[in-house]
Amino acid sequence: MKPKVAVNGYGTIGKRVADAVQMQDDIELTGVTKTHPDYEGKIANENSYGLYSAIPEKVSDFKESEVEIQGDIHDLLGKSDIVVDCSPGGIGAKNKELYEKKDIKAIFQGGEDHEVAGFSFNTLVNYEEAIDRDFLRVVSCNTTALCRTLSGIHKNFEIEKVRATMIRRGGDPNQDSRGPLNAIIPKLEVPSHHGHDVQTVIPSIEIETLAVKVPTTIMHLHAINIEFDKNLNEEEIISILEETPRVSLIDEGLEIDSTSQLIEVARDKGRKRNDLMEIPIWKEAIGFEENELSFFQAVHQESDVVPENIDAIRAMFDLERDYERAIEKTNKNIKLKKIL
Amino acid sequence: MKPKVAVNGYGTIGKRVADAVQMQDDIELTGVTKTHPDYEGKIANENSYGLYSAIPEKVSDFKESEVEIQGDIHDLLGKSDIVVDCSPGGIGAKNKELYEKKDIKAIFQGGEDHEVAGFSFNTLVNYEEAIDRDFLRVVSCNTTALCRTLSGIHKNFEIEKVRATMIRRGGDPNQDSRGPLNAIIPKLEVPSHHGHDVQTVIPSIEIETLAVKVPTTIMHLHAINIEFDKNLNEEEIISILEETPRVSLIDEGLEIDSTSQLIEVARDKGRKRNDLMEIPIWKEAIGFEENELSFFQAVHQESDVVPENIDAIRAMFDLERDYERAIEKTNKNIKLKKIL
Amino acid sequence: MKPKVAVNGYGTIGKRVADAVQMQDDIELTGVTKTHPDYEGKIANENSYGLYSAIPEKVSDFKESEVEIQGDIHDLLGKSDIVVDCSPGGIGAKNKELYEKKDIKAIFQGGEDHEVAGFSFNTLVNYEEAIDRDFLRVVSCNTTALCRTLSGIHKNFEIEKVRATMIRRGGDPNQDSRGPLNAIIPKLEVPSHHGHDVQTVIPSIEIETLAVKVPTTIMHLHAINIEFDKNLNEEEIISILEETPRVSLIDEGLEIDSTSQLIEVARDKGRKRNDLMEIPIWKEAIGFEENELSFFQAVHQESDVVPENIDAIRAMFDLERDYERAIEKTNKNIKLKKIL
Amino acid sequence: MKPKVAVNGYGTIGKRVADAVQMQDDIELTGVTKTHPDYEGKIANENSYGLYSAIPEKVSDFKESEVEIQGDIHDLLGKSDIVVDCSPGGIGAKNKELYEKKDIKAIFQGGEDHEVAGFSFNTLVNYEEAIDRDFLRVVSCNTTALCRTLSGIHKNFEIEKVRATMIRRGGDPNQDSRGPLNAIIPKLEVPSHHGHDVQTVIPSIEIETLAVKVPTTIMHLHAINIEFDKNLNEEEIISILEETPRVSLIDEGLEIDSTSQLIEVARDKGRKRNDLMEIPIWKEAIGFEENELSFFQAVHQESDVVPENIDAIRAMFDLERDYERAIEKTNKNIKLKKIL
Repeated sequence: MKPKVAVNGYGTIGKRVADAVQMQDDIELTGVTKTHPDYEGKIANENSYGLYSAIPEKVSDFKESEVEIQGDIHDLLGKSDIVVDCSPGGIGAKNKELYEKKDIKAIFQGGEDHEVAGFSFNTLVNYEEAIDRDFLRVVSCNTTALCRTLSGIHKNFEIEKVRATMIRRGGDPNQDSRGPLNAIIPKLEVPSHHGHDVQTVIPSIEIETLAVKVPTTIMHLHAINIEFDKNLNEEEIISILEETPRVSLIDEGLEIDSTSQLIEVARDKGRKRNDLMEIPIWKEAIGFEENELSFFQAVHQESDVVPENIDAIRAMFDLERDYERAIEKTNKNIKLKKIL
Repeated sequence: MKPKVAVNGYGTIGKRVADAVQMQDDIELTGVTKTHPDYEGKIANENSYGLYSAIPEKVSDFKESEVEIQGDIHDLLGKSDIVVDCSPGGIGAKNKELYEKKDIKAIFQGGEDHEVAGFSFNTLVNYEEAIDRDFLRVVSCNTTALCRTLSGIHKNFEIEKVRATMIRRGGDPNQDSRGPLNAIIPKLEVPSHHGHDVQTVIPSIEIETLAVKVPTTIMHLHAINIEFDKNLNEEEIISILEETPRVSLIDEGLEIDSTSQLIEVARDKGRKRNDLMEIPIWKEAIGFEENELSFFQAVHQESDVVPENIDAIRAMFDLERDYERAIEKTNKNIKLKKIL
Repeated sequence: MKPKVAVNGYGTIGKRVADAVQMQDDIELTGVTKTHPDYEGKIANENSYGLYSAIPEKVSDFKESEVEIQGDIHDLLGKSDIVVDCSPGGIGAKNKELYEKKDIKAIFQGGEDHEVAGFSFNTLVNYEEAIDRDFLRVVSCNTTALCRTLSGIHKNFEIEKVRATMIRRGGDPNQDSRGPLNAIIPKLEVPSHHGHDVQTVIPSIEIETLAVKVPTTIMHLHAINIEFDKNLNEEEIISILEETPRVSLIDEGLEIDSTSQLIEVARDKGRKRNDLMEIPIWKEAIGFEENELSFFQAVHQESDVVPENIDAIRAMFDLERDYERAIEKTNKNIKLKKIL
Repeated sequence: MKPKVAVNGYGTIGKRVADAVQMQDDIELTGVTKTHPDYEGKIANENSYGLYSAIPEKVSDFKESEVEIQGDIHDLLGKSDIVVDCSPGGIGAKNKELYEKKDIKAIFQGGEDHEVAGFSFNTLVNYEEAIDRDFLRVVSCNTTALCRTLSGIHKNFEIEKVRATMIRRGGDPNQDSRGPLNAIIPKLEVPSHHGHDVQTVIPSIEIETLAVKVPTTIMHLHAINIEFDKNLNEEEIISILEETPRVSLIDEGLEIDSTSQLIEVARDKGRKRNDLMEIPIWKEAIGFEENELSFFQAVHQESDVVPENIDAIRAMFDLERDYERAIEKTNKNIKLKKIL
């Protein structure tokens, strides 16, 4: 029997998770929810995804619209074994009681605190600990990116400290009321929570982060500095990053100079929604000064956590015990190959 | 024997035209050109499109790169029956001599003047006149949009005058050096050339346009006012627009409020490169005040002219005599259905 | 005895009105209000403007801050003869009852409906009707701009119809949470309310408008088309606009090509807050096609209504009966000369 | 005899330097240059600054315009004792030969390499060494900012290493053709040159920087991390920064959350061109984790180097031997007080 997966919140993350679940052969999508009828609901209909009202009281709003629903969230949870909660930050924690009452497993996203599940997940770091769990949190887009690129380096070399500046997008492309329009907004929290969030997954890593928000919608960018206990060289790091799943090194000479040109590559490759689920790193800008490494990585905030959500489902139902085979299986099913 | 098509200039328009040619069953892609090796060239390689140096002297630049070429433009033109010139505005005119020397047909884009071909094309307006032509200009993204939406209305009703304001994007998504960053730039040409350009296709229409440039990359938007010789109502217009090929009415109630949300729909529908080749019009904002109609249409500047390029090839080789069947054939092959 | 003026709402408009009141010799500033302590309050302190809590219950918030207040709005109104209500749109109407109870005159801004005062004001159009009034609305930045530039033309020539597209900024420079970041948002109201709003001031004018919102903070821009009953030429229009107070023609050849370069001129001229209270019109882009005039005007949404607020006070206390002398007096006191 | 100062290049920096020179009592402005007539030239005329053609061959362009000139650069240099070269990056080096031929002193800006003058200047660091010099480079806006804030900390505590990420604006407000529109562009140079540039002024400091470009025009922002040889606390740093000239701590509770709100303060304070010549640092975001300090500073790229240019003139003519008195004198004359 394939595990039955509900997606609560068919928005930016939810719609991608639903598509990815649908592409797997060993799990099954039962349906998705929305709080109100709009074009995303209409597309759920076109995709023949069962659509349910996330708020039982709002069923009538759907009935009056051209978006069709099959019932409300209670109906959906009733026929599911696990729910991937993709509701806005903070709402997931409020939903937990319902999931417990319904006695189903749940995956939360990085908008929730670590405590919501007591376990923060990244496939490369702690897949085995996720096996058979009932609750789990897939960390945020930024933390997932950092876990991916740092984990391999951390396993192979002694990291003294990671210092990173997160240059974050103001809103997603379809969030047209969000700013800032012509400003840089520093996160007046020093250090920012991102470093601590990495430690919920990799407790042994020393990391400190700062964050700002800038007027762009398409990707975050991280400026990363890693201090090692000894001098290393670029090649040692490059060879590790080249082997790291879901990380892509961008070759020099291809004139990919910005986040918008990264997205252009995803567009040209025919990626659905121009998603870039892997973390791109500019190869020519991987550099050492003595024992300190610097590099830039970009983060497609809308999609990078999607494969980890699928891996997590597979772990929670013990469908696969080995993290590398889990990754291979997920990547193959969602057709995720290194982009360049 | 299928006509053999070369695409000169594998950039924003050229790469889309090449993909579209590749999807047809009655024409054949011989190859594409680039002036220098970059990620787009690499993708041409991955797509197994024959790639040729647009500038013979630059062959060595490619040889030194990881982008492979099959020769230069002379080699490509030598094995082609027609070239779709997608080089930057003004370069097409300079290329014409070469095309004449090579004795092949050529399609130019809207960046060139009408005079380059002496015939400006839109499928809905003058397909029959394009049959067997040697040279032809597919008009610009803005003019193509206006021809599509105005042509049906113009055929059915007496238009006194069209007045439109074109709110144009500053640059395409991957043109990351273009502005303006925080300004509106009026086109200090009154009226703007866009209205006249529509008349190169539909000489009998009275139209006057103004244009501005704003800080966005994804779509243009047209604010259109049409004065008729008598009072009409919305329904009469809506029924014409609903029947017009490659025009899509956006339903109220789906919360598609901006150009970025239109693009989000294209993304969710899995359109390659989030292309929106049809012209979206907000249905709820189609309104009359006495004999004057107002509405908004959006223009995906990167892609809307692509189907017309394919139709034009079909006309120039007399593969199809009827414009409606030509449209149907092109749309079917590129899987273009009304988006919502 | 000089009329005593309170400014309710020391924000974008309010702080400019307060400064302008302070610069007059025949009226007097009693103080300003804010709803919460922030840097604007601190600057009111530095300017020695009496500062009052707009919300009596929030007095304690100020007490706990480094921003000093002299009391609450009741205290301020108690010592004033008139209040210029510069609170956010819709709040003014709610405040009206309080003003009536306090038995003081009030000026509302364009964020309120015409009905709030039953009289919509522009100095060039209806100054005389404002004399001795108790309530009055200074129309919005966009409407004020249109009234200024259209009124002179309307008096001198027979206008058949004005058609305008308003390209509006997403938010003011300091509103850093507002978007859109990379989108154009059409106002899905056709025609937009702006045309009707002009008619609250100039009922005899035929005008229809469309509006969009774009990613910029500094100025709106209007693309205007005016149809006359006969053919005219540019010079006739230019000579009227040159004589119109608070309208500035921008000469060709000075390379002022965008709204940001207009603001740069204001900066270079040492205008406080780079304010551009007059309406700039690009002279080279004033053009006729037969009986239709087209031109572009820019609107500094933060400041253009300020002089009209001062004029209105002068009318409401019958300090000056002639609108031209009122304008001259206001302009002189705020040092408003044509910018270029 | 007061030293006579020419400003070569009346653009973003040059016009501010000219204004600042004009405000001094011990030096004198002889004139400014421009390469072509535009609105800035017109404003030079209005300011009664002698205007000269920067390119002798372009004199006729000015003659045909409404911008008046007094001659060309040779005329200007002939009557000056020093030139402040404010031409675009790289042009200064080319101008040096002319300055040597004319036998006048010269100040270059940060767009030139250190080698142009062999001495890179910041008042707080090496004023004494600038006394009587013939050539000198005032370092760039970013480097000047770092020198100001780091110098005091460096003198008082043992800095192990500074690591900073420079988040840079795409273009200045009036540069309306510059991007990026919706992208982040990493500087693919690791580490970036900014750290090395600080060392041209403070050779003993260990510093490494990374840089990115983002879609904003108004200010740069630096995310700074400083590692000390021992644990310190915020108060020790705050007290140093509070005493540092031309650095301003931004108090918590004033709701100044972004670069645009910093600029709003400058506007509200009536600063000409909304200039913010001091470096603002958010006080609440000055934080320690053990021996590592983090904070954010903003940089008004158009104006922060202006006072250093004036100080430099004073040093080069030995008008003042003590750097603190030089600063005091410059600040007083340009009315530069800490902003908040």
